[in-house]
Amino acid sequence: MHERQQPVGGEPRPVLAVIGVGLIGGSFAAALRKAGAVGRVLGVGRNRKSLQQAVELGLIDAEASLEQAAREADIILLAVPVGATQAVLEALRPSLRDHTLITDAGSTKLGVVEAARAALGERIGQFVPGHPIAGAEKTGPAAAVADLYQGRTVVLTPIDENPMQARRRLTRLWEACGARVIVMEPETHDLVLASVSHVPHFLSSVFMWQVASAENSDLRMELAGSGFRDFTRIAAGSPEMWRDIFLSNRPAMLSELGEVRKALDHAEQALQAGDATQLHDFLERAALARRFWGSRSGLK
Amino acid sequence: MHERQQPVGGEPRPVLAVIGVGLIGGSFAAALRKAGAVGRVLGVGRNRKSLQQAVELGLIDAEASLEQAAREADIILLAVPVGATQAVLEALRPSLRDHTLITDAGSTKLGVVEAARAALGERIGQFVPGHPIAGAEKTGPAAAVADLYQGRTVVLTPIDENPMQARRRLTRLWEACGARVIVMEPETHDLVLASVSHVPHFLSSVFMWQVASAENSDLRMELAGSGFRDFTRIAAGSPEMWRDIFLSNRPAMLSELGEVRKALDHAEQALQAGDATQLHDFLERAALARRFWGSRSGLK
Repeated sequence: MHERQQPVGGEPRPVLAVIGVGLIGGSFAAALRKAGAVGRVLGVGRNRKSLQQAVELGLIDAEASLEQAAREADIILLAVPVGATQAVLEALRPSLRDHTLITDAGSTKLGVVEAARAALGERIGQFVPGHPIAGAEKTGPAAAVADLYQGRTVVLTPIDENPMQARRRLTRLWEACGARVIVMEPETHDLVLASVSHVPHFLSSVFMWQVASAENSDLRMELAGSGFRDFTRIAAGSPEMWRDIFLSNRPAMLSELGEVRKALDHAEQALQAGDATQLHDFLERAALARRFWGSRSGLK
Repeated sequence: MHERQQPVGGEPRPVLAVIGVGLIGGSFAAALRKAGAVGRVLGVGRNRKSLQQAVELGLIDAEASLEQAAREADIILLAVPVGATQAVLEALRPSLRDHTLITDAGSTKLGVVEAARAALGERIGQFVPGHPIAGAEKTGPAAAVADLYQGRTVVLTPIDENPMQARRRLTRLWEACGARVIVMEPETHDLVLASVSHVPHFLSSVFMWQVASAENSDLRMELAGSGFRDFTRIAAGSPEMWRDIFLSNRPAMLSELGEVRKALDHAEQALQAGDATQLHDFLERAALARRFWGSRSGLK
């Protein structure tokens, strides 16, 4: 697995640098390596142990500094908390080569684009923002697998400055990982992700916080079953990562939370009034929508 | 499996009647049969096909009417929507024998006790209310398994009129199913279950309803990932069953929803203010509580 594969003919395979070799970055490296789409893989990170583990697992060939990564890599993936985007890009910039393609895996896009513009200046065209929709409940290089992106969706939110060639190149890389690529505006991405990812995480955490703060929380936890388990699973996620995501996507989050509150008012009024028909209709619509989604999503 | 097992000596094994032979009732029958704790098993239900399937699966020996069940059974389990409790008990009462033990599997207890008092009158002592905490996402006799209750918790909420002998008898039956029995007041049960079961279901449905009602719901559903899947899984449950549960546990539901709203206000204010420290602390407390629960609950 550590051997450098030599191309059959023509150009050498591109060098990949992954900034943040955890589940997302490590799986990207593993998938591209498996597909033969990259040659040498460099890993950058603050956690020394984690990087050594990534080398042992065969996810990366060597540790590198941000400066080395900028000097040597043809493709750079940022798989860091969105709040770290600007600092990482600023550190990469001085040594960055002209042809190098940079992308990211951040869960929000408007804030990331803003940070990238501030950090990269006239080099902004080299940065094509992206977001692979793939589970983040497990973390660290040990969780990385080559098939994480198989059948998953990756959203690209290209900006005007991105040359068509850069967009195509990134699309091909993600497709080599087995993913389906869709393109949309950063604004649309952020609102949709606020709705189906960030707000559920926020609500799950709010609920978990409330139960844990109750006087008889021990008894509550003792009687919690499989519904509780599933509803609160995401609340176990990294506080640092999710704080960053929420702050980075604040306007969309607040807007969507407002919509959820309206729906809650509606349902709670039906409960308060003991209106069996209205309650049933609301529950039925939710159940049918969820069953339909479940039958189509391919997520078991 | 259909053969009547003869006891080695002494009394014949008790006859069990299950009213509502789905996941809960069918699994109770299968577990007690496997443990050798019951002899003949009768099944009562409105759905003819479902009952025939239960006979074919070996969950019950024969279909029966409510009247037959009351005449022949030594133990009767009601596994029907809580809203049907009173009508079922009223139909059982005229033919009920003195020694027969009745229990239920309803998700709320105060309303069930009230319904049982109204239906059973001076026979109320024969009814020992119960609630097995076991997944309800799959339904129907085909989902029933003998080990559903293995390692699970069953709450009994006995009333003053229940003789100690009846409580002990029911405890032994659930223990024969592999369950751990705990006893509490109906009020406590209802508040705790509102918190860890009914409110999460309500919130999951509210959220699912809101997403499904959005203008661009198709795009949202397309980008929904594994967090969405888990957070909304319970929203796919039976609208009839959950409407009944919510209405039957209305005061506790409204009280707990009020507490969740307070927690939501608190977290949303931190987001609105962009208060990174407060957001982090709230997320960390939720994450630690969830991880701790996950490590102890035995629910994977």
